[in-house]
Amino acid sequence: MMKSIVSSKYLACLVGSIILNLLFIINIYVGGQWKLSWSLGAAIEAETVAAIYCSGHGRAYLDGLVVVGNKPVCDCNTCFTGPDCSQFIPHCTANADGGDPLFLEPFWMQHLASSALVVAGWHQMSYTYGGKSFFSKELAKVVRKVHASVGNAVTQNRFIIFGAGSTQVLSAAVFALSPENTSSPAKVVTSVPYYPLDKQQTQYFSSQKFKYEGDAYRWNNRSDCSSTNMIEIVTSPNNPDGQLKKAIFHGPNVKTIYDHAYYWPHFTPIPAPSDEDVMVFTLSKLTGHAGTRLGWAVIKDETVFNRMMIHMQMNSMGVSKDAQLRGFKLLNAVLEEGTGIFDFAYQTMKSRWERLVQTVSLSNRFSLQENNPQYCTFYNKVRQLSPAYAWLKCEREEDKDCYAVLEAANIIGRQGNLFGAEDGYVRLSLVRTQDDFDILIERLHKLITEGDGDKTM
Amino acid sequence: MMKSIVSSKYLACLVGSIILNLLFIINIYVGGQWKLSWSLGAAIEAETVAAIYCSGHGRAYLDGLVVVGNKPVCDCNTCFTGPDCSQFIPHCTANADGGDPLFLEPFWMQHLASSALVVAGWHQMSYTYGGKSFFSKELAKVVRKVHASVGNAVTQNRFIIFGAGSTQVLSAAVFALSPENTSSPAKVVTSVPYYPLDKQQTQYFSSQKFKYEGDAYRWNNRSDCSSTNMIEIVTSPNNPDGQLKKAIFHGPNVKTIYDHAYYWPHFTPIPAPSDEDVMVFTLSKLTGHAGTRLGWAVIKDETVFNRMMIHMQMNSMGVSKDAQLRGFKLLNAVLEEGTGIFDFAYQTMKSRWERLVQTVSLSNRFSLQENNPQYCTFYNKVRQLSPAYAWLKCEREEDKDCYAVLEAANIIGRQGNLFGAEDGYVRLSLVRTQDDFDILIERLHKLITEGDGDKTM
Repeated sequence: MMKSIVSSKYLACLVGSIILNLLFIINIYVGGQWKLSWSLGAAIEAETVAAIYCSGHGRAYLDGLVVVGNKPVCDCNTCFTGPDCSQFIPHCTANADGGDPLFLEPFWMQHLASSALVVAGWHQMSYTYGGKSFFSKELAKVVRKVHASVGNAVTQNRFIIFGAGSTQVLSAAVFALSPENTSSPAKVVTSVPYYPLDKQQTQYFSSQKFKYEGDAYRWNNRSDCSSTNMIEIVTSPNNPDGQLKKAIFHGPNVKTIYDHAYYWPHFTPIPAPSDEDVMVFTLSKLTGHAGTRLGWAVIKDETVFNRMMIHMQMNSMGVSKDAQLRGFKLLNAVLEEGTGIFDFAYQTMKSRWERLVQTVSLSNRFSLQENNPQYCTFYNKVRQLSPAYAWLKCEREEDKDCYAVLEAANIIGRQGNLFGAEDGYVRLSLVRTQDDFDILIERLHKLITEGDGDKTM
Repeated sequence: MMKSIVSSKYLACLVGSIILNLLFIINIYVGGQWKLSWSLGAAIEAETVAAIYCSGHGRAYLDGLVVVGNKPVCDCNTCFTGPDCSQFIPHCTANADGGDPLFLEPFWMQHLASSALVVAGWHQMSYTYGGKSFFSKELAKVVRKVHASVGNAVTQNRFIIFGAGSTQVLSAAVFALSPENTSSPAKVVTSVPYYPLDKQQTQYFSSQKFKYEGDAYRWNNRSDCSSTNMIEIVTSPNNPDGQLKKAIFHGPNVKTIYDHAYYWPHFTPIPAPSDEDVMVFTLSKLTGHAGTRLGWAVIKDETVFNRMMIHMQMNSMGVSKDAQLRGFKLLNAVLEEGTGIFDFAYQTMKSRWERLVQTVSLSNRFSLQENNPQYCTFYNKVRQLSPAYAWLKCEREEDKDCYAVLEAANIIGRQGNLFGAEDGYVRLSLVRTQDDFDILIERLHKLITEGDGDKTM
């Protein structure tokens, strides 16, 4: 009897243990985990590095700086330091300079599975896709889908070309729109306030083909322009002031490039899909991946497209396929998440703008750009800009050098004269990390309330 | 007694089952498999696509063409077709045109674990690394290690800059070495036979700063050059003929760019580490990843380095961080594998060259470039070139258009005149897939033995 009880206990344990065995086996084979072979080590490595604790004020990267051993250290946000970025640096300078779109980083940290990418060592080694083009057809398909879902650009029956960020694409467009055989170079113009790189880049590459000729308003209505080849770059929404801009020049000798980097619901109402001859976009201001360097142009004319293709070949023999793959993965994730990224980006930028307006309105010392509401077809409602940059004006006579006023208050912006405007203006970037924005608001608040610019004084 | 035997059998089974469970648990927790979270789906997806069967004559890519549903189709080698690339296309044309370095693909297919890469969605979104540079310090460290392990370039106390392939880096160097304020542009020269892109690119970007002035030999010893700014691009080993080339111009007004894309044991003996002012390399001809578009320059002078940095900013705001991450992973894998990749590449190229020599020597109709043995410090032995390209000459009077002769035999090469040489020459690429090379040899063999060029005739 005793033995029988022992036996049946054994039996029960055995059955239990075997069931557990089976569960493990099912989990391993049906769950698919066991199937992983070559990617497993890399996946563990990536997840381990991604899990390094940086106090919410930084992150560790697979190719991040290694100081001791082979573990990458935390890459801390401005004003934070220490091995885990937990130490705040008092009196540090608020960085509102560059347009690093890190405000979107939290979105991707919340959407890890849909945006993760695994690449085999032998992936896409060739210069081309299928021996034909430098550019991925599948990526172009996804780009079209994203535009269609947002309704910000017409892409049917249009050509799409990629480049290393909108930077390289804009340059390719200027080269492609210049006359081929002419003694007088095309005049490239931009209207004040303009995106500084357009000027710098055009001057840097200027040749017999084209020359930078400054502010578009200066040339408008001049009779000597009617027979000259003109190229106008229209940044819309504009960098620095976020306004939806229109071309100043029109006519048979005029070519227009629309830089639509910021034409997303993140930053602006979308009144209608844009349908211009050459429209430039970039992953940087859509998903926030500035470092991937992936921009594109949507082009009506096949000759212009072909000339831009030649530019891309001469300049860099196409564009990194790793950048194209990353873009493919991220834009697919954008589509998978429905309106997710747009809602996140719009809410973030809107709330930042409102905090800024609230702070600036505490005194008369500074003013911000106009922000007239418009109907947005994406959100089916009237809404304001939630701009990427504040175009801040120092209103006092003695504050002619607005950059210096802010610098003295420990804030780094970008001088107005870089945009062709007066130095009474400064551009403040609102797209950086939450830390950068919080510190900017803190410093601005202090400047406005402690200074003599207080409205109550 | 009976019961006791049964019990001990149960016990044995139970112990076995428990041990199995423990093994599962150990495997899961210590082996790290269970820990995978966000990367798991992407890893399964990547391994599934990588496992698509393409008969050894193609491969499927994560971002490969999708025809039906959402499964990418096989990307077949030239001359192969069908859903699994198993159908040979009879009478198809042998493609020996471009320098797609697919000969290295099998190496990476054999080294899957060390070269796999897993990327988080939020990885490196910023334009810069640590708010400072467009270029990864960790990547530069690995580049230095690879050069040190091969002994092909001095990198201590040198600056390293990256670009989108050697294509963009070469252009950056030409811009950076041009005089800043001068009325007469620098003369850019290359000696025949030269790499066609150097000419095409320089002409494309020519301006007040520099102009392409053709064959270096034509300008040599001309007195009007002694006071002119000259930039000589020296491709060494040379493309098309694989020879270790030296600069023709020397003097205070001369700047030299060494294009060392092929200065790896794959293609040439390494007589000594190169120690030139500006040396250009590319991932494309080292690991075979042409599509990644990652090149670099090793630079002595800080001013030249700074001017190249400005070029990279003006042209494309740095270089894709995804390309840099891929390069980082692959070069680390190169180091991990010891001399593995060099042995594989050298053996492959050597055996291809020997088969080509054997085929060509069946007649007097064609000849190949010289191939004098030299001492190689990497292999510690005297060895020949195992060049990336054959520089084929049609020896017969009537075969002036060598390209046409080959074309009639169903072989596509690259015309001699593109390299500044006569059309009696054709470049044949030897770095493509094994399929491409096999078909090339087959077509050549047929041309040589069936034609009247047979030595026995």
